[in-house]
Amino acid sequence: MSSTYGETLKLSIFGQSHGTAIGMTLDNIPAGLPVDEIELQTFLNRRAPGQNDWSTPRREEDSPEILSGILDGYTCGAPIAAIIRNRNTRSGDYSNLKDLPRPGHADYTAQVKYGGFQDAAGGGHFSGRLTAPLCIAGGLCKQWLSEMGIQIGAHIANIAGICDEFFNPITPNLSTVGEKFPVISEKAGEAMCAAIADARRVGDSVGGIIECAVTGLPIGLGEPMFGGAEGRIAQIVYGIPAVKGVEFGAGFQVAEMRGFENNDSYTVSDTGGIITATNHAGGILGGITNGMPLIFRCAIKPTPSVSVPQTSVSLSEGVEKELIVKGRHDPCIVPRAVPVVEAAAAIAIFDMVLGNTQTNRRK
Amino acid sequence: MSSTYGETLKLSIFGQSHGTAIGMTLDNIPAGLPVDEIELQTFLNRRAPGQNDWSTPRREEDSPEILSGILDGYTCGAPIAAIIRNRNTRSGDYSNLKDLPRPGHADYTAQVKYGGFQDAAGGGHFSGRLTAPLCIAGGLCKQWLSEMGIQIGAHIANIAGICDEFFNPITPNLSTVGEKFPVISEKAGEAMCAAIADARRVGDSVGGIIECAVTGLPIGLGEPMFGGAEGRIAQIVYGIPAVKGVEFGAGFQVAEMRGFENNDSYTVSDTGGIITATNHAGGILGGITNGMPLIFRCAIKPTPSVSVPQTSVSLSEGVEKELIVKGRHDPCIVPRAVPVVEAAAAIAIFDMVLGNTQTNRRK
Amino acid sequence: MSSTYGETLKLSIFGQSHGTAIGMTLDNIPAGLPVDEIELQTFLNRRAPGQNDWSTPRREEDSPEILSGILDGYTCGAPIAAIIRNRNTRSGDYSNLKDLPRPGHADYTAQVKYGGFQDAAGGGHFSGRLTAPLCIAGGLCKQWLSEMGIQIGAHIANIAGICDEFFNPITPNLSTVGEKFPVISEKAGEAMCAAIADARRVGDSVGGIIECAVTGLPIGLGEPMFGGAEGRIAQIVYGIPAVKGVEFGAGFQVAEMRGFENNDSYTVSDTGGIITATNHAGGILGGITNGMPLIFRCAIKPTPSVSVPQTSVSLSEGVEKELIVKGRHDPCIVPRAVPVVEAAAAIAIFDMVLGNTQTNRRK
Amino acid sequence: MSSTYGETLKLSIFGQSHGTAIGMTLDNIPAGLPVDEIELQTFLNRRAPGQNDWSTPRREEDSPEILSGILDGYTCGAPIAAIIRNRNTRSGDYSNLKDLPRPGHADYTAQVKYGGFQDAAGGGHFSGRLTAPLCIAGGLCKQWLSEMGIQIGAHIANIAGICDEFFNPITPNLSTVGEKFPVISEKAGEAMCAAIADARRVGDSVGGIIECAVTGLPIGLGEPMFGGAEGRIAQIVYGIPAVKGVEFGAGFQVAEMRGFENNDSYTVSDTGGIITATNHAGGILGGITNGMPLIFRCAIKPTPSVSVPQTSVSLSEGVEKELIVKGRHDPCIVPRAVPVVEAAAAIAIFDMVLGNTQTNRRK
Repeated sequence: MSSTYGETLKLSIFGQSHGTAIGMTLDNIPAGLPVDEIELQTFLNRRAPGQNDWSTPRREEDSPEILSGILDGYTCGAPIAAIIRNRNTRSGDYSNLKDLPRPGHADYTAQVKYGGFQDAAGGGHFSGRLTAPLCIAGGLCKQWLSEMGIQIGAHIANIAGICDEFFNPITPNLSTVGEKFPVISEKAGEAMCAAIADARRVGDSVGGIIECAVTGLPIGLGEPMFGGAEGRIAQIVYGIPAVKGVEFGAGFQVAEMRGFENNDSYTVSDTGGIITATNHAGGILGGITNGMPLIFRCAIKPTPSVSVPQTSVSLSEGVEKELIVKGRHDPCIVPRAVPVVEAAAAIAIFDMVLGNTQTNRRK
Repeated sequence: MSSTYGETLKLSIFGQSHGTAIGMTLDNIPAGLPVDEIELQTFLNRRAPGQNDWSTPRREEDSPEILSGILDGYTCGAPIAAIIRNRNTRSGDYSNLKDLPRPGHADYTAQVKYGGFQDAAGGGHFSGRLTAPLCIAGGLCKQWLSEMGIQIGAHIANIAGICDEFFNPITPNLSTVGEKFPVISEKAGEAMCAAIADARRVGDSVGGIIECAVTGLPIGLGEPMFGGAEGRIAQIVYGIPAVKGVEFGAGFQVAEMRGFENNDSYTVSDTGGIITATNHAGGILGGITNGMPLIFRCAIKPTPSVSVPQTSVSLSEGVEKELIVKGRHDPCIVPRAVPVVEAAAAIAIFDMVLGNTQTNRRK
Repeated sequence: MSSTYGETLKLSIFGQSHGTAIGMTLDNIPAGLPVDEIELQTFLNRRAPGQNDWSTPRREEDSPEILSGILDGYTCGAPIAAIIRNRNTRSGDYSNLKDLPRPGHADYTAQVKYGGFQDAAGGGHFSGRLTAPLCIAGGLCKQWLSEMGIQIGAHIANIAGICDEFFNPITPNLSTVGEKFPVISEKAGEAMCAAIADARRVGDSVGGIIECAVTGLPIGLGEPMFGGAEGRIAQIVYGIPAVKGVEFGAGFQVAEMRGFENNDSYTVSDTGGIITATNHAGGILGGITNGMPLIFRCAIKPTPSVSVPQTSVSLSEGVEKELIVKGRHDPCIVPRAVPVVEAAAAIAIFDMVLGNTQTNRRK
Repeated sequence: MSSTYGETLKLSIFGQSHGTAIGMTLDNIPAGLPVDEIELQTFLNRRAPGQNDWSTPRREEDSPEILSGILDGYTCGAPIAAIIRNRNTRSGDYSNLKDLPRPGHADYTAQVKYGGFQDAAGGGHFSGRLTAPLCIAGGLCKQWLSEMGIQIGAHIANIAGICDEFFNPITPNLSTVGEKFPVISEKAGEAMCAAIADARRVGDSVGGIIECAVTGLPIGLGEPMFGGAEGRIAQIVYGIPAVKGVEFGAGFQVAEMRGFENNDSYTVSDTGGIITATNHAGGILGGITNGMPLIFRCAIKPTPSVSVPQTSVSLSEGVEKELIVKGRHDPCIVPRAVPVVEAAAAIAIFDMVLGNTQTNRRK
């Protein structure tokens, strides 16, 4: 598996933070799907670091070069490949990272797993930078899902313990999410920004929670057991660095609910369709979408790159040493991770759409 | 995908709740691994319903018949297949379930997805009964991991809001979990049992949280991005019916932590090895095991089969109707799910062990 | 991979020749497909050994027990599982086979690969007996393809150098194949039977070639490169023990043809469709079906179980020894392999049907 | 599947003949494997068209740019990605190809499958040009296999009916293959070149057969049934455009052999090892390598691009039309396909090496 994902579509992501280029291939996509490259760039820009308080001052231009698979604005049936060249290619000496691993990063696990051969510069293949090609794939899938009437939106539900409003689980309004700072409640957003600025001031960082909603889903996506929507979405969302938890619908709250309360009663909608009166299931029953909004949340740990002194161990000497992580880093990656979570969800759901072999012969 | 799992090992689970038999095949397992069938049965018994307050009075004997792949107490390199015959085969009329879907169950999603052709009896392929073959596969993997010094244990962390102690994340003591009722704190267990009995009394049910710890893991299991330990474990754990959340280490708590606090500093252990001083990462960095205990929790929703009257919609008539779920059901499946979570973890981890292609040439 | 096959459908085959049971699971099959169990049994009977000159006098009754996935004559969306119990379970002492491997069998390779833990009885998992569950899966796929107007038929093209007529590559008439002995030319069939009887008389065996044709295929099945129809069919056909060659259309004859001759010109059929005037491509261009009959042939080696004395090496002593293979064996498995080849083709093609994600938007 | 291959390694190939770039990603490769880029270029040059009688006068420089996965001459554990930019990008009008499909090409099947959205220029994703990235992946695998003592060599066994000597199946001498023209017998090579020149003179083309041998293989590679070495090699070899047949060892000749003759007796080698006296099995028994040279042959159809007038059908008008294929084309691609076959074999075998989970505990 490694950096490939998908049952029916085949996504492969490659690159290292400071290598020549990062990129992705996306195979088994039907021909004739429209691609709006400007919309894709707009989506990618949501992930890019900006010039504000809550992100790194480094500037990346994540303009993908599409190498194959798209012709005259449509998919052509061949595998899609796209790359983003790195501007910040290897220059310094990273042997330090191999000897004195940064806490919270993959330095130590990579060093042991790859025996020192790994590309340590900037985190190598473990860098958050690899979410850019994930967003290329996800941005495309989002467009194709949108054509089918399926919309995906996410917002920051929590940063540093400060909570945004949640989506209405029955009728989530994706357009209420702020463009500048992706929250529903502007006031909560301001408090979050203040908390991020606080952390930055002391060289520390903060984590958070992202909530994602998918509307317009048909009933019947997903497969039983290991092919269920929850597991497939969780697998790709955990592919985003820093994610430490994923929950659907009522999630961990189910532990405090009784069955009668947690069960979503069926009722008839205004338009005569069958809906549920509540949506504790997050739109998924038995791993299969039930036509209600699919809602999940994921926890993002605080950026491990903090500038306060930390304790590590020199692998060569076997003794503790103080470590100072240099450079400027995002004190909070949660805002930038919002489109990445949408991208991951889009890929998982489009994979389910493509792999749905049920012909729905009626009995 | 559907009911198959695994990158290197290939697990396939089949059966319906009231069909002829349920079972599993497990392919690509090395020859020469010892199998203790008595130990396997003991493990399966932990999942079986008993004669107590917290489980269903129905009695199942989950004695698997091994059809292939094991010879004279060892794996023989051929795919392993085992089945459990159902005693409770289809007898009644289940057409009602197809018309008036039970809230919280997969009745409605299955009806739409499979166009009425699904086996509705007892939940069909969506039944919790399918966790029995999962436990066969997982019980075998547990034995093989144990041979390598890897131990897996789980306990009930929460039922109905009542919390057990957590495992010590640095030195979890798996043997402190009670045999009769799988909690660390006997007192918490008693309160949980009381809460279950309360729910049963009113025909309702309760949910909970299970915490699982894996000790003795080598450093370097798991692959980058989508092959990471979190995503692979989450995918199989979500294959257990009723799971609505999965988190690793500090999990959703990371939203309220700062980076310096959440980062696990490296230090030198008494025996000279490199360990972390805390274990907020739950033993996983960059998707790769770091040698610390792997710790995760999953949320189990309250059993949807409650006997209080519920509202559903007749699919044929398109109008709301009252639904009474008959039969006796577990008011809480969390205790029985504990070995199932261990089984799922064992399968995911053994798959990572088998698929680890790194040769660890040293630089 | 091992004994699993399929991109979209997931086939898993298990069992050993003299184990408890052999069987298969077939997952990701749409619900609502009709299953005619009598027709399936008729198909399986074509593979069963009979009481004639060309097959073994052993009698097997390959009546599968369907454990799951089929309900009231239709697939129900759950994985299909079926088993056949072995009557001829382990009884003798097979340690001899582990020390003195039979030439042409997998005894030696299994011994080294599995370190002596393999089930050597009757060839274990490498036995031709495992083609029975392959025929269960293939017999089902054949029925489902037939519903779509896709027919699959095979015949013996060659035994011991004696050739049958070939199918007409443009309009193969599958019904001209004999029921008793699967050849087109009765006369060729008689000569083949005589050659088999000759070989049997001297304790030897003969090989042959099977030709398979698939009609009624839509244009556009198969995917580029590694997903091409040839490669996917070849992979499963090579899963049949004793197959040593697979070719499509003109096959190895292309080496002696010029391009102009080998190219199949396009022309308009009587009904106004586009067909090719010849069919050297065997119905496949660029790995994709072109609507013409798909035609392939596979070479089946002579049964390695011959009763004439052979030379082997004692693995424990490291010296050559004479080996006498006891028991009665098919002097030619080609006739019984005919339905197995059809089964393999049916599985590969049904997998391509299920996995065809192209939406065929028209430009 | 489509343009991805591999059970343990994950190869993804992308690009269209006249698109921006072609390339490949190769994932799940262990870190620390040495990469000699000059040797890789030398290998790729064997596939490149030259300035001689038997290949196209077009000149391609297939110098790959490695984007990721290789650092300081070693694999770093991250996915390997490499691209080759196309010089000959889309310029002309290819709508003609979409209306009047060239016989023997994938024009028609692509048109129907992709609804006209395919990239028709130069064959698009179906072009033989896509074998260049296959050679990048295969050239790398060849180097890594060579490190383990496994050598792969191929030669032209037949062009236009003119046969080269075969490899000695017991002791194939890979170094006897000519560097300029890959045959063993120089005289046969001259006759082949004359036959190619003959075909070129009349605007026609010729096909052939390539024989490939793999030496130094350990015993025990490959898995039972669908994971067997034959099927896995066949699947990737059929991914090479123009391959219409694949056979192993005695191949289709087994139809005329008796079992005693075809069985390879075991004997003791000069160095005390166990070998077979003949090698009709082509080094594979039960799908598993037996330590003897692995030998296979594949049939390559004559280049469909011939300049003699051919008959096709206008898809828009539904009537036959004469078609003249313009441009200069290889009258025979067999010589250039020799390294491609080696590459395909290398990838399949390295995949089997990586996926071999047997621990070979001895009994």
